Amino acid sequence: MDQISLSVDEFPKSWYNILPDLPKPLPPPKNPEDAPSRLESFPILKTALRQELSDQRWIPIPDELRELYLQAGRPRPLHRASRLERYLGTPARLYYKREDLSPTGSHKVNTALAQLYYAREEGFERVTTETGAGQWGSALSYASALMGLQCKVFFVRFAYDWKPDRTTLMKLYGADVHPSPSDHTECGRALLKEDPQHGGTLGTAISEAVEAASGREDTVYCLGSVLNHILIHQSVIGLETRKQFEMVDDWPDLMIGCLGGGSNFGGFMLPFVKDSLDGKRNTRFLAAQTEASANLVHGEYRYDYADHAENTPLIKGYTLGHKKGMPKVYAEGLRYHIAAPIMSLLRDEGVLDAVSYPLDERTVFQAGRTFMQTEGFLPAPESSYAIAAAIDEALRCKKTGEEKTIAFNISGHGFLDLFAYRKVLMGK
Amino acid sequence: MDQISLSVDEFPKSWYNILPDLPKPLPPPKNPEDAPSRLESFPILKTALRQELSDQRWIPIPDELRELYLQAGRPRPLHRASRLERYLGTPARLYYKREDLSPTGSHKVNTALAQLYYAREEGFERVTTETGAGQWGSALSYASALMGLQCKVFFVRFAYDWKPDRTTLMKLYGADVHPSPSDHTECGRALLKEDPQHGGTLGTAISEAVEAASGREDTVYCLGSVLNHILIHQSVIGLETRKQFEMVDDWPDLMIGCLGGGSNFGGFMLPFVKDSLDGKRNTRFLAAQTEASANLVHGEYRYDYADHAENTPLIKGYTLGHKKGMPKVYAEGLRYHIAAPIMSLLRDEGVLDAVSYPLDERTVFQAGRTFMQTEGFLPAPESSYAIAAAIDEALRCKKTGEEKTIAFNISGHGFLDLFAYRKVLMGK
Repeated sequence: MDQISLSVDEFPKSWYNILPDLPKPLPPPKNPEDAPSRLESFPILKTALRQELSDQRWIPIPDELRELYLQAGRPRPLHRASRLERYLGTPARLYYKREDLSPTGSHKVNTALAQLYYAREEGFERVTTETGAGQWGSALSYASALMGLQCKVFFVRFAYDWKPDRTTLMKLYGADVHPSPSDHTECGRALLKEDPQHGGTLGTAISEAVEAASGREDTVYCLGSVLNHILIHQSVIGLETRKQFEMVDDWPDLMIGCLGGGSNFGGFMLPFVKDSLDGKRNTRFLAAQTEASANLVHGEYRYDYADHAENTPLIKGYTLGHKKGMPKVYAEGLRYHIAAPIMSLLRDEGVLDAVSYPLDERTVFQAGRTFMQTEGFLPAPESSYAIAAAIDEALRCKKTGEEKTIAFNISGHGFLDLFAYRKVLMGK
Repeated sequence: MDQISLSVDEFPKSWYNILPDLPKPLPPPKNPEDAPSRLESFPILKTALRQELSDQRWIPIPDELRELYLQAGRPRPLHRASRLERYLGTPARLYYKREDLSPTGSHKVNTALAQLYYAREEGFERVTTETGAGQWGSALSYASALMGLQCKVFFVRFAYDWKPDRTTLMKLYGADVHPSPSDHTECGRALLKEDPQHGGTLGTAISEAVEAASGREDTVYCLGSVLNHILIHQSVIGLETRKQFEMVDDWPDLMIGCLGGGSNFGGFMLPFVKDSLDGKRNTRFLAAQTEASANLVHGEYRYDYADHAENTPLIKGYTLGHKKGMPKVYAEGLRYHIAAPIMSLLRDEGVLDAVSYPLDERTVFQAGRTFMQTEGFLPAPESSYAIAAAIDEALRCKKTGEEKTIAFNISGHGFLDLFAYRKVLMGK
């Protein structure tokens, strides 16, 4: 049976927090030395901040939130990719996790629901955020609709222009959506003054979203990736996957995920890391990146801002520099200058490997298409990076004859990215 | 728990065929009196023809095909719509079935996989078909990719022009896609000669697809709705739903589905009909239609062609006439002149009721949006008709205080129909 499903009773009751299990203490966020404090004034959820620094390994999921996860269709299946294996003629066993089945089409819903639940608990009426590919903005709009809060989204301008359907989706959920840089914030206006055609980056959009929440008591800023509490919320992916591998009496030798900030891959792999660190298992981990922003491949491991305008605290991670211009790619969800502190530490410790794919995305999109024609599901462009890396590894196994177990995460579906497949594979 | 899930072991081992359980024998397809025979030369699957006339109540699903259903993610959850109930303030209990979770986004995959399985078994190398909304063409393209056959799709021209992403999806699976009327067939050329701007209808596209398969030994024509064998394949929806209602110890008083030809609603409701006919249960059935083609509301119950060019046998059903011009609506999947013979007989016997919604689709789209903002899932425009009817009924229960159990089918998702929501609800 290729579909490995869990019953609703098997959905985890707690999130997993890797902080106490890391090989070294995680360098904490800090204030810039020559600028006003960020840590005190950063308009983030109190619960998120508490989880960010928590040394508790297991963090209970509140009952009502657990119901919302189930309502959103969790647990999600793990699939054995038998058809892809046969097509490739590989002795490797391939498995993929289906986060594409989420209501808005990506894993982002896992933290959006949690953040909106806490936002309501903490008495906020409004949330602000940025979005690059549009997946995070959609997820937060969805969660806001379900929890009855207002949502304002700053959408990286060039992706906004590419993706009118993403904007419609967010607006149908009731969100306010602005292309970023916008004239709604000081930093947006400054960027537009420099360049009225500014295409925006995730870094500029974060700056605007933070500014729009700052100093407003009813408003809180929600981030979609990078920070620890987000990786904690995403751990439901990997916790389910562990149970699913136990069910079929197999275990991944290699886990693969695409990585921009690190939330889908973190959620998928982190619950497997301790077993490798303890020597109980030999699982290896591989991040698939775009050359446009291969922070784990070309970055330096140091403190940097999470945004363009230096509104955030400094975090320690593999970074390309927060002012770095990055070429446009269709996998916009992977285009970010700094990797999550946790993922960066694991990279620095040699636990996590990384590979990057060229700016011309043909190979990656073709891998997505091969997956689609064999397994049947249309992956998001971002997820196609994980697929490309899995196929590369499976073909390596074909040469060596190795019967490796490879697991990869389908972070989202591509129904709103068909224009990108059309451009890259059909040239129009 | 609002999500009612089945394990893969609970997926049915046989399809249900209602023919032996109908209150009267179903009038068979017949040849036109004054034209050449259609029945012998109609380029359809032998297995489909056998199933079409079968008096076997249970038809075993071949093992390999059953695996493909599981691979496509079946069984699919039934959800209690608690959040929508609270929003409406209704004492009714609402449930919806999630066919939107299919690989190509609609229930059509249930018969596409079956037809392609048999096409390969019967030695065909190529299939042809028509598509209106694009849901059926996508499903057949997907199934063709999985079974290694070629697929040629005639896509109703005005929907083809609206929906470049649908065409891309089909092409990514490897299908040939032509706007219909096309210059690839005699009947297509004739229609274009009459009117070079001909927008097409499902009826004209069927004519082309039948012609493209006729007289070619390696090619077979596959239809996506209306015929008995298709309703048999779709019965997996209702068979799962029965088990899910048993699990929660509830039973529908009213089942609702949108209806153009009748395949999603037939698949959903037919496994429940015998209990009502036998007096064991009091379940009623309601079809939600568009005024553009409300065949069950305004049609006559008589023999008619299934296509525009009179290439098909005559079937008996509620019809608006096979030459009838029908206004364009965004719920293109409901725009067809004749209802399935089985659904029509049940309508004629008073088992099935029907309601139609106006050409201005605002009410229906607004119902879809209400569903989306409460339950979180973006429905296809077609599915929003079922939602609108369910909401109307739930509000009726609010007035009367009736604690009715209402079940409706979400036949597909709306990720490829956001332009339609934008036009209808946002006016651009």
